[in-house]
Amino acid sequence: MSFESSRDLATLSDLSDAEIESLLDSAASFRDGRRASTLDGKSVGFLFLNPSLRTRSSLEAATARLGGYPVVLSPGKDAWRIETRDGVVMDGDAAEHIREAAGVLARHHAILGLRCFPSMEDAAEDAADPVLTAFREFSTVPVVNMESARWHPLQALADRMTMRDDLGDAAGKTVVLSWAYHPSPLPTAVPESFLETAARTGARVVVAHPEGFDLPLDAISAAHATADACGGSVEITHDRDAAFAGADLVYAKSWASHRWYGRFDQEQPIRQANRHWIVNESMMARTNDAAFLHCLPVRRGVIVSDAVIDGPRSLVLDQAENRLWTALAVLHALAGGDA
Amino acid sequence: MSFESSRDLATLSDLSDAEIESLLDSAASFRDGRRASTLDGKSVGFLFLNPSLRTRSSLEAATARLGGYPVVLSPGKDAWRIETRDGVVMDGDAAEHIREAAGVLARHHAILGLRCFPSMEDAAEDAADPVLTAFREFSTVPVVNMESARWHPLQALADRMTMRDDLGDAAGKTVVLSWAYHPSPLPTAVPESFLETAARTGARVVVAHPEGFDLPLDAISAAHATADACGGSVEITHDRDAAFAGADLVYAKSWASHRWYGRFDQEQPIRQANRHWIVNESMMARTNDAAFLHCLPVRRGVIVSDAVIDGPRSLVLDQAENRLWTALAVLHALAGGDA
Amino acid sequence: MSFESSRDLATLSDLSDAEIESLLDSAASFRDGRRASTLDGKSVGFLFLNPSLRTRSSLEAATARLGGYPVVLSPGKDAWRIETRDGVVMDGDAAEHIREAAGVLARHHAILGLRCFPSMEDAAEDAADPVLTAFREFSTVPVVNMESARWHPLQALADRMTMRDDLGDAAGKTVVLSWAYHPSPLPTAVPESFLETAARTGARVVVAHPEGFDLPLDAISAAHATADACGGSVEITHDRDAAFAGADLVYAKSWASHRWYGRFDQEQPIRQANRHWIVNESMMARTNDAAFLHCLPVRRGVIVSDAVIDGPRSLVLDQAENRLWTALAVLHALAGGDA
Repeated sequence: MSFESSRDLATLSDLSDAEIESLLDSAASFRDGRRASTLDGKSVGFLFLNPSLRTRSSLEAATARLGGYPVVLSPGKDAWRIETRDGVVMDGDAAEHIREAAGVLARHHAILGLRCFPSMEDAAEDAADPVLTAFREFSTVPVVNMESARWHPLQALADRMTMRDDLGDAAGKTVVLSWAYHPSPLPTAVPESFLETAARTGARVVVAHPEGFDLPLDAISAAHATADACGGSVEITHDRDAAFAGADLVYAKSWASHRWYGRFDQEQPIRQANRHWIVNESMMARTNDAAFLHCLPVRRGVIVSDAVIDGPRSLVLDQAENRLWTALAVLHALAGGDA
Repeated sequence: MSFESSRDLATLSDLSDAEIESLLDSAASFRDGRRASTLDGKSVGFLFLNPSLRTRSSLEAATARLGGYPVVLSPGKDAWRIETRDGVVMDGDAAEHIREAAGVLARHHAILGLRCFPSMEDAAEDAADPVLTAFREFSTVPVVNMESARWHPLQALADRMTMRDDLGDAAGKTVVLSWAYHPSPLPTAVPESFLETAARTGARVVVAHPEGFDLPLDAISAAHATADACGGSVEITHDRDAAFAGADLVYAKSWASHRWYGRFDQEQPIRQANRHWIVNESMMARTNDAAFLHCLPVRRGVIVSDAVIDGPRSLVLDQAENRLWTALAVLHALAGGDA
Repeated sequence: MSFESSRDLATLSDLSDAEIESLLDSAASFRDGRRASTLDGKSVGFLFLNPSLRTRSSLEAATARLGGYPVVLSPGKDAWRIETRDGVVMDGDAAEHIREAAGVLARHHAILGLRCFPSMEDAAEDAADPVLTAFREFSTVPVVNMESARWHPLQALADRMTMRDDLGDAAGKTVVLSWAYHPSPLPTAVPESFLETAARTGARVVVAHPEGFDLPLDAISAAHATADACGGSVEITHDRDAAFAGADLVYAKSWASHRWYGRFDQEQPIRQANRHWIVNESMMARTNDAAFLHCLPVRRGVIVSDAVIDGPRSLVLDQAENRLWTALAVLHALAGGDA
């Protein structure tokens, strides 16, 4: 199998529903013990501009299981600092341009991965995902997005697999994406990717967040359209209690307010005023014995209480394990393996 | 073979004498050219909270030789900073809890390794080895201690192999563990582990250090009991000259004074006053042509003179080489391989 | 094949012309799909004292393609800071001596690599390549120079392969090594290595640089002698326009002035005054449709214009790709593989 409409995995939108189902079936077969040597004699180049635990761990292990070898580079630490803007005179800190970084690594490796968090300074620029876009343009081999300014498709696939395992057919089920407090303003790549993922399942999706923490309007519009097409719905609310009522699955995640994007000192008091947005036992008691999901890393006592994350309905370790199986399925597909 | 009493290799005390002998035989067979593919298709996750050269080099090479793939993560550098205390509100620097770090990596890998040096602030807390203990609790796969606050069993195994190669049966031989000067207060994981190792050989073990640099009392008591059971003895002395007299093996190591634990500015003048505790040719001339051992890294001209470490009885490179063979034996055993 | 006159690849001078041709043929055969398992069951230890992208990427991938496993260590980051001077009392920052670092790694791995940039403080010391020299002395296995204070033979081999592909027989061709502006004073390892490489092809080699930026005299003398022996020539000029006239290949590179070595604050105004030494379209228009080469990383808009590096005669990505094929050939040869 390889993707029909895209050489790369940049966002989940690159994949049709059939392709996602096929990837999840492939992931499940790897979990069931399937082995493949799709990357035999090949290497994969992973470029991390930001820290990682699950993404590196799962992709390195997946590459090795497929017979390949992962080369991990961290520009600014063990490799040269990278310039991502075009047409600039490079007389500052950056010694290498992303055109060369992508171009060179594509000559050495069969697949490339890139992690590039947003600048958190200019919302429009971050929304355009400039670093990933340039990297894809200058790579001549398939690129897998290891979390960009805007998207985290590998996480979304693992989330979808975890949902499928727990909920089965999600049609008619209530899935809550709940904002949670965090001391710093975080990117929206994970909540936006989960929102799209959840909307595509046909579930009733409820997004709960305090006033001022709306997700980007285009993401909401797209989710509405997706849900309509898939027989589900998307609701936005500031009422946490109502949102959790009867929920079958709760996905907790903190994100920055786009109203104060780049001026987060002004957001801080509003953020602080919502410290009570933690997922704890009393919140979960409102649900229909809902599963608890979070992409990790998670701040205990801040995003979620110990009792919830350590409780029987916490699926966070299953989610993280599914990162391995879905990474195997994605690399296998990008390398041209059969479904 | 797998360990009888422990799923993990946390400390040498986890192993019976027979298990140690079996591991050393296995290590020697790997040195003699034996090959095994115990880790074929599997990965091992190594989490380094502190720097490393020999430990990483030997464990990565050993994993690869067994057909496996090592994933190396350094929280705070390329992965998220880790919280190790339980029940805290994580609103500080640490983005990830060790419960999730251990739990997730255990889902991705067949074996985990952890390096976690002591805080050097609270002696009782360090003695309880809290980070390793938590990591073992939350890992669902075997854990190998890559040097914790209190123990360094991989080093102790390589030391034991080196002793066995050089001394043969150590009964009746004199083995000196000598404190040496170092500009900073260092952990006691290596000297405590060596003390136990040496006591289990049945040798006459002499620990020499300046006043005030006693090893922890429980380590000394345990070593006495071990030596009694194994037909050897343990002596403690502040008289270096007497200690080295007739010695068959000298193990040099610096360590911090536990009297001033956490208040090392007050220890500094006492430490400085013992700068003459260097192992040089005149000290070695008192011995019975003793072998010289040190775990490395070592500060030349401070811990040991160039003439001694470059001399014919220096076994430091053999020790370091034995890190590879014993790592192979340990990973092979933890993965369920035959002895 | 293995090298006749040297166990190591320290500098291109270690290799005869026949050996270089044989390595390039071997590299080309790997590019054509040849596979080998020369490093099966073996590991290679790569010690990086400085950042890297192409060198790490190519050597890790090459090691894996030959069936081996690369262990990458970065002293001062994930491993201990290394002392390189002999006979010193190590009571400063460095915890490990290069004697032990090289000695230990040679016990664990089949081949070692070292990257050690110059101090840029003492020209005579840097010219003696003290770190590489010590590392080679204390390693008991073959050492490959991954760019030292003075030489970068892996780059020179890839450059030679790229020249051979583009120019065919270089006799009678004009090859320009052109200094270019860069905000910082850079080492001369690449330009010196390229100068020797180019001189050995029998080409007419023209070195163009502003006044005060002469390459070391011994390098120039050696290049003259080499060119004489190979039927070529070496010219030095400060006249860029004349140098580029009719050139068949332009190699751009910035380097520090040896006149102000270690006093680069005094060099800064002279450097700044030569900001116009950029390779742009008007300069390339003077050439015989010359190929453009640079070792990368390169500062766009500073060393070279976007139009030139993105143009049809830019071979920088081919050069970088050839790093992989030549690395395969070198590791294969150092491991004792057939040509």
